[in-house]
Amino acid sequence: MCGALFKKLKLKTTIVRAWTRDEENMSDHDEIKFNLVEREDYTLVQFDLENIISPDSLKSLAPPKVDGRKGVVLSGRGPIWLYCYLTHFYHPTKFIAVYDPRISGGVIVESHTPNHSVGDVIKVDIE
Amino acid sequence: MCGALFKKLKLKTTIVRAWTRDEENMSDHDEIKFNLVEREDYTLVQFDLENIISPDSLKSLAPPKVDGRKGVVLSGRGPIWLYCYLTHFYHPTKFIAVYDPRISGGVIVESHTPNHSVGDVIKVDIE
Repeated sequence: MCGALFKKLKLKTTIVRAWTRDEENMSDHDEIKFNLVEREDYTLVQFDLENIISPDSLKSLAPPKVDGRKGVVLSGRGPIWLYCYLTHFYHPTKFIAVYDPRISGGVIVESHTPNHSVGDVIKVDIE
Repeated sequence: MCGALFKKLKLKTTIVRAWTRDEENMSDHDEIKFNLVEREDYTLVQFDLENIISPDSLKSLAPPKVDGRKGVVLSGRGPIWLYCYLTHFYHPTKFIAVYDPRISGGVIVESHTPNHSVGDVIKVDIE
């Protein structure tokens, strides 16, 4: 039962595209693709930049909403300021972790639950 | 008068070393050097890692306090999760920007003042 539920959660993914405010003038440069993967304890927020983004992109970025009762793990190749922006954006969640491919885990950078402490590394399944 | 004050502010720097909780067992691996530079509108928080740090370092890190009536600009070479940790740590300030050497400016990632919007790039003097 739990196994089936876990499998279901693991397989549920959502792909969201975030554009600039003026979609008619959208260029590929402004596009960030988000992919949500639901895990039992957290939502994996993966992003993919099709091109280099400019700081200006942050002005109109609308990252996908997540369930604040779970944590968020951020993953993707992008500028540090995008990660910092997303850290603040997902502040109202249980915890925030940053996936580090060098250690194959998510580093907790902010926590509002006694189950995870800042500096802990959690196992993250990246597809 | 203002010029002299600005010059004074520009020149005021503070160097702070942050160690792990157990300083007796401190190794070079755990050391992060912080350097604060006071500017009129923000505090430049520069960090320098003498060695590679582990996520565990975050557990005992005590970054220097800053004046919350000003913004913070983060600068240094380090892992993304350190930047995300610092973004949350300096949340109770006017704004937070990340210095990006590729654009020679600070990208605002979080703002609590109408003077700066997220996505704006501010001029940052890096010494």
